[in-house]
Amino acid sequence: MLINRHTQTIEWGDCDPAGIVFYPRYFAYFDACTGKLFAKAGFPKFDMLKRFNIVGIPMVDTRSKFYVPSHFGEDVMIESSITEFRRSSFDVHHRILKGDAVAVEGFETRVWVGRDPEDADKIKSRPIPQEVIRAFDG
Amino acid sequence: MLINRHTQTIEWGDCDPAGIVFYPRYFAYFDACTGKLFAKAGFPKFDMLKRFNIVGIPMVDTRSKFYVPSHFGEDVMIESSITEFRRSSFDVHHRILKGDAVAVEGFETRVWVGRDPEDADKIKSRPIPQEVIRAFDG
Amino acid sequence: MLINRHTQTIEWGDCDPAGIVFYPRYFAYFDACTGKLFAKAGFPKFDMLKRFNIVGIPMVDTRSKFYVPSHFGEDVMIESSITEFRRSSFDVHHRILKGDAVAVEGFETRVWVGRDPEDADKIKSRPIPQEVIRAFDG
Amino acid sequence: MLINRHTQTIEWGDCDPAGIVFYPRYFAYFDACTGKLFAKAGFPKFDMLKRFNIVGIPMVDTRSKFYVPSHFGEDVMIESSITEFRRSSFDVHHRILKGDAVAVEGFETRVWVGRDPEDADKIKSRPIPQEVIRAFDG
Repeated sequence: MLINRHTQTIEWGDCDPAGIVFYPRYFAYFDACTGKLFAKAGFPKFDMLKRFNIVGIPMVDTRSKFYVPSHFGEDVMIESSITEFRRSSFDVHHRILKGDAVAVEGFETRVWVGRDPEDADKIKSRPIPQEVIRAFDG
Repeated sequence: MLINRHTQTIEWGDCDPAGIVFYPRYFAYFDACTGKLFAKAGFPKFDMLKRFNIVGIPMVDTRSKFYVPSHFGEDVMIESSITEFRRSSFDVHHRILKGDAVAVEGFETRVWVGRDPEDADKIKSRPIPQEVIRAFDG
Repeated sequence: MLINRHTQTIEWGDCDPAGIVFYPRYFAYFDACTGKLFAKAGFPKFDMLKRFNIVGIPMVDTRSKFYVPSHFGEDVMIESSITEFRRSSFDVHHRILKGDAVAVEGFETRVWVGRDPEDADKIKSRPIPQEVIRAFDG
Repeated sequence: MLINRHTQTIEWGDCDPAGIVFYPRYFAYFDACTGKLFAKAGFPKFDMLKRFNIVGIPMVDTRSKFYVPSHFGEDVMIESSITEFRRSSFDVHHRILKGDAVAVEGFETRVWVGRDPEDADKIKSRPIPQEVIRAFDG
């Protein structure tokens, strides 16, 4: 299964008055890393949306566990992989590593969605193309 | 059990290129609403940190489920309550309502922490004061 | 000239390790307040974009001066007004007030833009409708 | 004068419903790049704050001009340098380059501040150490 590894610098603006990462920023890191994982599989998000005529891969369920806090100026490693593909949804797992320690874990369930053909203001799930799924087998 | 209700306007800058809320922003809404819940109980965060000499109430585990997307310009209602207090940690539940529908749910486990007396760069859990716990009984 | 006044609560997540507002968040406040000003004039952004078939009112030049810092938990007043309309651009002025003191000032020049008819990936300025301009005269 | 160059990937979560960067995010990029510039001069922010016992280098005046929009998935180059040091304040200039074109410019005036010795809740400007200023001469 394809894994993406990204070195993330924790910025001053990602941290709160306690001096550690404001946790919603971890979700922004993870969202970017899911994008980087798709890019590594050959599907940069901007091109992917156009090519498959989708609106995005919005989140339906996400969880994160925080074991070790990080402060601004630290570089951490984010490892991301897809753990399951279903018809129109899939699961992503992220681990933030500081040396050998897992500092944060993230779990995502996302859906492959396009515009609803009957109401352009709404979005609707669609089957994930097989060529996308196959690209993560490597 | 004390409940806080907050009307949240979804801003343009909270939304992504799909036109709906970028989900990390929901976690920022929830973090603010946990603060508003403590304020309603008589403990505005700025004063609370000083009074009890704590650094904050950082997250250790959070999950969110997204049922109905929202776009910029919508007003949603966020209901927040504490579902359990333990010795030094507690659980918060948030529901985002659009009319009668639950659009998003959020679950938080947070810890009451101060500076580690042996290393000011580190944080350490502490027992939650009884007067804080009692204030949510109302 | 129409003025909008909005009470903004400074949230924990808007603040940095120095305990004061991370200044990019002021720009997010101002962006929301420009939206609220248009809504007060009768043009909520979501409806306005559809009605006039525009993509947005992106920034071309913005400046902000910071006189007094604010920390989480404070409520500040943001006053917003349009100081000039030109053919397809306009200027907005924001003042953040703490009591009688001006804590922050913001200046914006924005453009009224639609999709470029010759390249849907690009945006292009358009004349601001007279009915929009007139609505701010009140 | 020392220049820092940083390749910035524009993320999905940095963009708004128009599909282009939500401009407050440019200020967050610039803030991070000012930090990277100091790190290149030998003063990573986390260590610098401790070593010189300061609270930060908060903004007092910032301006940005936006010439060319960018969408998610693009890599841009951010060039940053300090254009003037004064007793306790200094100016930073950022340019975002897309190929040879300048897409965005940012101008910052920041202050070197510590805690006010008479009121720990307040911050107060201090003279910038000569060794810091000299490190940017290279």
